[in-house]
Amino acid sequence: MDNTFSSFNPISRTLMGPGPSDVDPRILTALAKPTIGHLDPQFIELMDQVKQLLQYAFKTENALTMPISAPGSAGMEACFANLVEPNDKVIVCQNGVFGGRMAQNVIRCGGELILIEDEWGKPTDINKLADALKTHPDAKIVAFVHAETSTGVKNDAKALCALAKQYGCLTLVDAVTSLAGVELRVDEWQIDAIYSGTQKCLSCVPGLSPVSFSPAAIDKIKARKTPVQSWFLDMQLVMEYWGEGAKRAYHHTAPVNSIYALHEALVNLHNEGLEASWLRHQRCHEQLKNGLQSMGLSLVVEQDFRLPQLNTVYIPDGVDDAKVRSCLLNEFNLEIGAGLGVLAGKVWRIGLMGYGCNERNVDYCLNSLQAALDK
Amino acid sequence: MDNTFSSFNPISRTLMGPGPSDVDPRILTALAKPTIGHLDPQFIELMDQVKQLLQYAFKTENALTMPISAPGSAGMEACFANLVEPNDKVIVCQNGVFGGRMAQNVIRCGGELILIEDEWGKPTDINKLADALKTHPDAKIVAFVHAETSTGVKNDAKALCALAKQYGCLTLVDAVTSLAGVELRVDEWQIDAIYSGTQKCLSCVPGLSPVSFSPAAIDKIKARKTPVQSWFLDMQLVMEYWGEGAKRAYHHTAPVNSIYALHEALVNLHNEGLEASWLRHQRCHEQLKNGLQSMGLSLVVEQDFRLPQLNTVYIPDGVDDAKVRSCLLNEFNLEIGAGLGVLAGKVWRIGLMGYGCNERNVDYCLNSLQAALDK
Repeated sequence: MDNTFSSFNPISRTLMGPGPSDVDPRILTALAKPTIGHLDPQFIELMDQVKQLLQYAFKTENALTMPISAPGSAGMEACFANLVEPNDKVIVCQNGVFGGRMAQNVIRCGGELILIEDEWGKPTDINKLADALKTHPDAKIVAFVHAETSTGVKNDAKALCALAKQYGCLTLVDAVTSLAGVELRVDEWQIDAIYSGTQKCLSCVPGLSPVSFSPAAIDKIKARKTPVQSWFLDMQLVMEYWGEGAKRAYHHTAPVNSIYALHEALVNLHNEGLEASWLRHQRCHEQLKNGLQSMGLSLVVEQDFRLPQLNTVYIPDGVDDAKVRSCLLNEFNLEIGAGLGVLAGKVWRIGLMGYGCNERNVDYCLNSLQAALDK
Repeated sequence: MDNTFSSFNPISRTLMGPGPSDVDPRILTALAKPTIGHLDPQFIELMDQVKQLLQYAFKTENALTMPISAPGSAGMEACFANLVEPNDKVIVCQNGVFGGRMAQNVIRCGGELILIEDEWGKPTDINKLADALKTHPDAKIVAFVHAETSTGVKNDAKALCALAKQYGCLTLVDAVTSLAGVELRVDEWQIDAIYSGTQKCLSCVPGLSPVSFSPAAIDKIKARKTPVQSWFLDMQLVMEYWGEGAKRAYHHTAPVNSIYALHEALVNLHNEGLEASWLRHQRCHEQLKNGLQSMGLSLVVEQDFRLPQLNTVYIPDGVDDAKVRSCLLNEFNLEIGAGLGVLAGKVWRIGLMGYGCNERNVDYCLNSLQAALDK
């Protein structure tokens, strides 16, 4: 190979898209600490702290609470692949890209998919879930996305879970974008399996997926008649490394440095306080919303179901989507997100997540966007 | 939660176990550069370079050469889950832990497993493979581990692949510990699917798994009658983000900072030269072997099949395995590996991998081990 290669030195950006979000410099410092062995007593101690801190962030006492060593889509798959057995009936509420991905997971696991659809940008209609549960009394699992990153909609996790529980279903929730950004109470809301990502409101680097499983979920996993197809994501094996009183049996080499970073992110969250973090996201959202509305822009999602951390805004008529986004990127080093799926070309997605969710960034985003629109 | 938590500050170790290996400080610096978006043009350019550099490291022109966003066991699963369809006959040569894991993967994918077993510490007997290929002319895939991390054995990848090819099989190779540490030529040896890890002879942080698929492997994937069960590891979807001329379609959020680190590790390898890296591993192995033999210790594996980067040495009679290893860890901050599986308690595993494979470390290891044994 004749090419020469040199170290990568990226131009810094302000990340206000759908994630990854801006990473706290303290977290980058933690990330770069010297690598130690994944069976080192120091690391085992760190794992215990990460587990406790994740329990804090999820508001759960679930013993099986840990990060999957791969991004959110692997966390999603860990939940479905372990909980869904062939022919299990699974109700999926879809109102965006990630609900669709859940449906794909059910099918690939050999489950029977009952799909409830709502318009993108609207919340899941609980009456449709009630009908589905009546029609399918043998449904085993109800799955939905808490914070739909593709639309900015918050689904009413508390109410959906309460209803699913009345019918004896397990609940499976996508909290990739919701964790630490908006109210989420795993135990109180009776969530049986939940997965998140590190690169959203935790302000950590992308690559890990925190998950939590309730005792009822673990019972279903342990009672499986067929093994989980995925060896890597088989929670019965993973538990022996991460689980309560586990023998720390070698399963795979943990992504040691990424765990350092997640630990630091969770320490930061704990220091701020979870509820304080929720409030900060709400406060910055108000500021952003007011600014966007003053500019004549309108938000896609109605106030009651709006995610503070992910704001979808209609692209004004006659404005060139790609041109504005590349102007923001190239002239302001500011990244905002494009629309996904049916909303592609129609909306922008402005993220206010974690460390990057602050007044200064909101001002910077509003001013830069105005300047780009004025060109 | 009443606990207080603070930042993690690990005591540094010298990592001379089976991996993770010592990470080059330049790689830790690269790891901690500011996170950018996974669709940022700067990142797309970096992805192209990582691909070219991986092609260099694997000695392949395979267009589908890229890192899986998860550790080596996910890379293994990506190979099996995509290539094995239900009822496909797969011959697995097992002579250690990781061959056994391959066998598990075949079963979980619904393949029909033909298992060839050799003693741990001995190489795969090519005559057994010849017999299996004659007995099972309908076998589709031959899979084996190039560098068996559990025993320190190098299997003869070139010869095994050549034989498998005579029978029209695809070849699937585990190169987690071999890549960059010992001769490996993907195209010349006719390897169709290969996976590695970042935390061994690349001296990068753990968490990613470089893989490469030949055109014949891609043909088999594209001709599948059933979808891959794993959405996360479905190479037909992954290709749209990483593949040749791909539209960079969003699949999952890439582990951006880990890719920075992998890039830096590969730049370092390219600067040193692949063949020079192989030679350095061999040179340090000779030094270690001579030192161990002078101490009266003996190696498990015969010279012809010995991995320079992973040295298994018998624990002398009457020596307390755990006591010696914890003395090394606590008094010398030196990590060496315990035995795995049938070799647990019988051997130590001393790694000489990547950045940590140097004369000074060999001396340090020999002197520390002597001191620990003298206690």
